[in-house]
Amino acid sequence: MKKRKSVISRTFRIISYKLRHDLKQNLYIIIFGTDTFLGKAFDVFLMIAILLSILITIFDSMVNSIPWLQTTCYILEGFFTLFFTAEYIARLYCSPEPKKYALSFFGIIDLLAILPPYLSFFFINARYMMIIRMFRLIRVFRVFKLFNFMSEGNMLLRSLQMSMKKILVFFLFVVILIVTLGTVMFVFESNVPDSKFSSIPQSIYWAAVTMTTVGYGDMTPVTDAGRFFATVVMVLGYTIIAVPTGIVSSEMIKEMHRFNGKDVVCPHCHRQGHDGDANYCKYCGHELYN
Amino acid sequence: MKKRKSVISRTFRIISYKLRHDLKQNLYIIIFGTDTFLGKAFDVFLMIAILLSILITIFDSMVNSIPWLQTTCYILEGFFTLFFTAEYIARLYCSPEPKKYALSFFGIIDLLAILPPYLSFFFINARYMMIIRMFRLIRVFRVFKLFNFMSEGNMLLRSLQMSMKKILVFFLFVVILIVTLGTVMFVFESNVPDSKFSSIPQSIYWAAVTMTTVGYGDMTPVTDAGRFFATVVMVLGYTIIAVPTGIVSSEMIKEMHRFNGKDVVCPHCHRQGHDGDANYCKYCGHELYN
Amino acid sequence: MKKRKSVISRTFRIISYKLRHDLKQNLYIIIFGTDTFLGKAFDVFLMIAILLSILITIFDSMVNSIPWLQTTCYILEGFFTLFFTAEYIARLYCSPEPKKYALSFFGIIDLLAILPPYLSFFFINARYMMIIRMFRLIRVFRVFKLFNFMSEGNMLLRSLQMSMKKILVFFLFVVILIVTLGTVMFVFESNVPDSKFSSIPQSIYWAAVTMTTVGYGDMTPVTDAGRFFATVVMVLGYTIIAVPTGIVSSEMIKEMHRFNGKDVVCPHCHRQGHDGDANYCKYCGHELYN
Amino acid sequence: MKKRKSVISRTFRIISYKLRHDLKQNLYIIIFGTDTFLGKAFDVFLMIAILLSILITIFDSMVNSIPWLQTTCYILEGFFTLFFTAEYIARLYCSPEPKKYALSFFGIIDLLAILPPYLSFFFINARYMMIIRMFRLIRVFRVFKLFNFMSEGNMLLRSLQMSMKKILVFFLFVVILIVTLGTVMFVFESNVPDSKFSSIPQSIYWAAVTMTTVGYGDMTPVTDAGRFFATVVMVLGYTIIAVPTGIVSSEMIKEMHRFNGKDVVCPHCHRQGHDGDANYCKYCGHELYN
Repeated sequence: MKKRKSVISRTFRIISYKLRHDLKQNLYIIIFGTDTFLGKAFDVFLMIAILLSILITIFDSMVNSIPWLQTTCYILEGFFTLFFTAEYIARLYCSPEPKKYALSFFGIIDLLAILPPYLSFFFINARYMMIIRMFRLIRVFRVFKLFNFMSEGNMLLRSLQMSMKKILVFFLFVVILIVTLGTVMFVFESNVPDSKFSSIPQSIYWAAVTMTTVGYGDMTPVTDAGRFFATVVMVLGYTIIAVPTGIVSSEMIKEMHRFNGKDVVCPHCHRQGHDGDANYCKYCGHELYN
Repeated sequence: MKKRKSVISRTFRIISYKLRHDLKQNLYIIIFGTDTFLGKAFDVFLMIAILLSILITIFDSMVNSIPWLQTTCYILEGFFTLFFTAEYIARLYCSPEPKKYALSFFGIIDLLAILPPYLSFFFINARYMMIIRMFRLIRVFRVFKLFNFMSEGNMLLRSLQMSMKKILVFFLFVVILIVTLGTVMFVFESNVPDSKFSSIPQSIYWAAVTMTTVGYGDMTPVTDAGRFFATVVMVLGYTIIAVPTGIVSSEMIKEMHRFNGKDVVCPHCHRQGHDGDANYCKYCGHELYN
Repeated sequence: MKKRKSVISRTFRIISYKLRHDLKQNLYIIIFGTDTFLGKAFDVFLMIAILLSILITIFDSMVNSIPWLQTTCYILEGFFTLFFTAEYIARLYCSPEPKKYALSFFGIIDLLAILPPYLSFFFINARYMMIIRMFRLIRVFRVFKLFNFMSEGNMLLRSLQMSMKKILVFFLFVVILIVTLGTVMFVFESNVPDSKFSSIPQSIYWAAVTMTTVGYGDMTPVTDAGRFFATVVMVLGYTIIAVPTGIVSSEMIKEMHRFNGKDVVCPHCHRQGHDGDANYCKYCGHELYN
Repeated sequence: MKKRKSVISRTFRIISYKLRHDLKQNLYIIIFGTDTFLGKAFDVFLMIAILLSILITIFDSMVNSIPWLQTTCYILEGFFTLFFTAEYIARLYCSPEPKKYALSFFGIIDLLAILPPYLSFFFINARYMMIIRMFRLIRVFRVFKLFNFMSEGNMLLRSLQMSMKKILVFFLFVVILIVTLGTVMFVFESNVPDSKFSSIPQSIYWAAVTMTTVGYGDMTPVTDAGRFFATVVMVLGYTIIAVPTGIVSSEMIKEMHRFNGKDVVCPHCHRQGHDGDANYCKYCGHELYN
């Protein structure tokens, strides 16, 4: 009881003391920092606010037949939106490089997360998009060192970045394939009466559903030729899934090799990146271990 | 005939002899041990009891329109439950560290496997949950050395444990993605009359069905925008399945390298990285083990 | 014209000459061998017969409303069955180890491929099972060296054999998981009126459909709890597919390493299996290259 | 303004100058080349023409109930077809080896892309197949060095080519498996009244849908035996997807090792296996490149 009281009074003293000094710098320490007590407290508070606003949004979508509940949700959503807008402005204000923050991944997420409610004046359902603020949780997780404790988490990300270029080539190829296969299916199936393959975009949708092995079954071939061709598309989709898997696997193994014992420093040129079984520095030729 | 008789009489003599000594220790040897004749016999008996009770539970669910059969099943289930309860108490009694047993993986499974029938007094269908005792079979398999004969089985488990942390990060990411994509779909599809995307939780369910490439087809997009967005979700799900696969693959390869005795140090040149079947150091030619 | 004539007359002379000698050995060379002209011709003939009989079986299933066509198919199937039965007896007769042949993989396939038509006297549809003789094509492919030309084909098989034990453990785990998850779903969904989850076996079928990401959609959860649980099952199935993939990948990489440059022979002990970067034989310590 | 004018006048001067020389060679430089200004301009123009013609084809398929729009599309398609036909003839004319071009991958694509509209005189819907010209975009991408900037893109292709043979063996195996499993299902399900498993080809289609985990749900087993067997097929399909994945992964890792310059031989100790960024031999310390 006493401790809680002292914590509160201490908090107040710290706040009032700090406010007398540089407001901007203090705001930066509280909002962006995670090392001080207030910085941590702010992050915890932010996480709770984010979770609450997400739950209210989800609840809102479930009660759209009960007017008074929906109105309550709407007001609460407005309140949270004002808070997050204020927070975004504060971030812009206290950041040493506002432009860099605004264009960073989290800066864009922060902006996107407060825009939807304002857009809902034009398109009522747009407010639900505020659920994108869920991605903000990733930043808050850092407070609890949920990601830090696994230095391997970075390894995961790095190997994904490395394979991004190859995966993009794969994507492009899949898109071309889906469009082509969908059109071929359209030729086979469009002449059937009441066919669901009524246009090429519809057939492309079918090709995507089939190639990715999702298989809703809302559009299925009914002709013999269509069914045979669908079988080919399926086996194709079943096989080429091996490509992204192979890309990511090989990049991860590469990253793992780099990670394992690659941090031995050459005593001569002080460089890293040697193999586990190397005797001599591969850069300057000096012996590694002596 | 004679042998069987002597086995039975011998069993009885052993039991009576042992009972006169430490009951607790004997129970431990029988219940937890697998080396003695009685220990093995108990495990075999246990396996049969587990299989029988599972079959009865399954049969019970199939005959709920025939009262007398269901009553018979109910009585048999009660009998097995009493037996397994007695076994659980005996395990707790004879274990040298009852608390540690109760909190171990198999201790929790054992408890969970006897609770459902008792819960069925409140919620009749709860008794079917006793099927969880199927996991107890894994322990019994050890008697037949079904897992032991493959020392590689442990390798499998160890590499899964190693990749658990990374897979958890992936899980978290997938959950955030599913919630966000489901909400976006809700915005696209909820305005259609008689839409199945009636709330955000429903749409999240759809996003999970689609991202994981399951694709039931009980909820499918009908608008053009929804179908286009669904295609994006599918290709996304089709591609990011590569991530857990890559994680597990790279961990298994790492584990495999470790398993092949690559950490044996040469006594002459002090280097590692030898094969599991190597007698001599591959770098300097010195004998590895002497 | 002349050449064809001489080939035919030569064939006849060879046949008549050989028949005068040991019939058994000649049959062996023709049926099992692939090096002689007759051995190859027999294999080609066999392949055509297998393909024809499969096509007739498929055609048979498509015309079961037209009696005279079905009768024709039936007679043709009988003819092929008699031929394959004669071939099987000949194989048994001329094989030096008939028992070993009968119990080999292809021996069992050969037997299974001729049994169905005889079983059709009891169960009319059983005859369609003769399609299993398609597996016999694999043996015939050897004639054309379709598998031999890729020595890597064996590598594929060997790495699958190596990973078989681990995959079996995975199978067992998946079966236990499917049964348990199916039962849990039964508890959630069975109380709904007209539920498709009418018994535990039905629910196990659903769990298999969902875990393997097939997702027919013939049985789908309708309650909120059921849908939430289904989402968990889906994400689980989506993730654990990484396990068999990881197993096969790591085994293939292992096999590949063994395959690459592992065939260097030690000049002293004449053994293989050394690393690509080894200087000394790991078995006897002798220098590898000098 | 001035610059644009001078560019245009320069272009005209270049064109008129070149036309006075060898038409054939100039056409080759413009059509096949990508280094000159005109070569690049032609490729850009071609890309726009391809994209436009694809969009028109897709639009055409969506308006087949509005006659005047469809007629417009038809005319535009005819125009593009004439242009691409002229381009194909020009390519054949100016290519130094017309036969080699006609039989190359892109030569066949070019031909296939202009044939469909001509075929539509016989079969009206055939014209939609012209969408295959989308594959021509891949060649155009080279102009922008979209593939070149990733030298790893070639690595991707090479490792796919390497694994092609093994994947073909896998394909063959999957086809045999699908045909066999489909037939077994036909035996189980065909006797049910109004069964969708009405013939073996239908059942093969079901087996493909199930094995590849697509799972439309347009054909599902209804008997207990059928459902049990379907479960087996699903788990099988779920597991053997590991095979192509393992093949591609291991090939990519192999290719990656090769790519990292591991085949550079040390001039002193004649050993390989060095990193791509190594200056000195990691075994003996000698300089690698001198």
